[in-house]
Amino acid sequence: MAERLVIGVLGGMGPLATVDLYRKIIETTPAARDQEHLHVIIDADPSVPDRTEALLYGGPDPTPWLIAGARRLAGAGASFIVVPCNTAHAFLPQVQAAVEVPFLNMIDETADRLAEMLPAGSTIGILATAGTVASGLYYRALAERGLRAIAPPGDEQTLVSAAIAAVKAGQVERATSELVLGPALGLVRSGAQAVVAACTELPLILRTGDLPVPLVDPTRVLAEAAVAVALGQRPLPATPSKGLAYRHAE
Amino acid sequence: MAERLVIGVLGGMGPLATVDLYRKIIETTPAARDQEHLHVIIDADPSVPDRTEALLYGGPDPTPWLIAGARRLAGAGASFIVVPCNTAHAFLPQVQAAVEVPFLNMIDETADRLAEMLPAGSTIGILATAGTVASGLYYRALAERGLRAIAPPGDEQTLVSAAIAAVKAGQVERATSELVLGPALGLVRSGAQAVVAACTELPLILRTGDLPVPLVDPTRVLAEAAVAVALGQRPLPATPSKGLAYRHAE
Repeated sequence: MAERLVIGVLGGMGPLATVDLYRKIIETTPAARDQEHLHVIIDADPSVPDRTEALLYGGPDPTPWLIAGARRLAGAGASFIVVPCNTAHAFLPQVQAAVEVPFLNMIDETADRLAEMLPAGSTIGILATAGTVASGLYYRALAERGLRAIAPPGDEQTLVSAAIAAVKAGQVERATSELVLGPALGLVRSGAQAVVAACTELPLILRTGDLPVPLVDPTRVLAEAAVAVALGQRPLPATPSKGLAYRHAE
Repeated sequence: MAERLVIGVLGGMGPLATVDLYRKIIETTPAARDQEHLHVIIDADPSVPDRTEALLYGGPDPTPWLIAGARRLAGAGASFIVVPCNTAHAFLPQVQAAVEVPFLNMIDETADRLAEMLPAGSTIGILATAGTVASGLYYRALAERGLRAIAPPGDEQTLVSAAIAAVKAGQVERATSELVLGPALGLVRSGAQAVVAACTELPLILRTGDLPVPLVDPTRVLAEAAVAVALGQRPLPATPSKGLAYRHAE
């Protein structure tokens, strides 16, 4: 058996989304007994300041917390790091600049998956936090691959944000799903040929079959990519140039 | 808000049992948003050799793996450590002797809970791995509290062990539950006034209501104890005398 890599999970944003990623890593791993599973190290520090608050409303910058967590994972032996929080990806360039261990980027992996699924020029609906929408993370990643992103209008975004907050408060139930179904169907009516559950709380309340178009779950895409990298079936992601990243962060 | 402690989880034995514990820690924590949850660090190295093999069939001693994982958790900042694997508790005295960070013992917590629930002299049924049964872990902990433990006869133990192996292979389904229901009901017929799902795979396939007596889930008991300790609602467990533990291990 080839040397396996150790998966580091920078989690806690929110905690249930971290549970969901770890469960999907386990489900994706071909294993019939404990010893065939992968070594996973999780640092779930939920005190990381709210990512949307930082991006939109001048809240504290979560970057120092993310760097501290990534360093704990590196110190414990993680070979690479995944972050089950879409919004946190807005801060990853600065975090990557501060740690040697490479990150596997959930947004890029999801955009790659969509580009495999759909022809160039297709429209993709994005259900996410207001911070992820405003950051343009998915818009840019999809545009680079010839795809167009659309998000719900403001009043429907408010419903999506309310559903995400409800999951973070532990309300994984039908009433929460219903908050987000209207905005999701609105995206389909506006031409979305696929919808991305682009906040890690959303796959907990939305399932394939809830919509008349494919629902893409970035948590599952990330789990599959992490398992493939850990098993040596594909290479580790390239670490961006440190010099460039440091300049960008300053 | 008082300083909160960091929960270290020495996991991966098996991986789904670790997911179950983390989910129960989250459910037990009073929190309405991410930042109110607890800092949890998980080291899930499933390459730890099989605990029952080591106890019964001369397999490799898992102690060095457990010590390495505990040291990774201590290095990353865990204030105390929990181990979501009943059988691994047979090796904890040697592991505790090698690391400064205290362990919160799942067997002791469960025995305390049973002693609160039932009068002295009561009979408790133990569903566990053959290794946990043979180790006498529950027998001793319950006897110290005036309770009597019984386990299934050999042929029924084989069914329990098969169900545990099926969960470790990802078969969390009705057929697996049915493997263990016969032995569980046999314990009740033999006088058990409560049954302990004393392998962390078993709460995934057995639920309260499956049996005519209370089913105690040590994973949930451990989650509740860990949250109470992390929130400062009860003291950290006392670390056993290092000298004594070292002598015991030699």
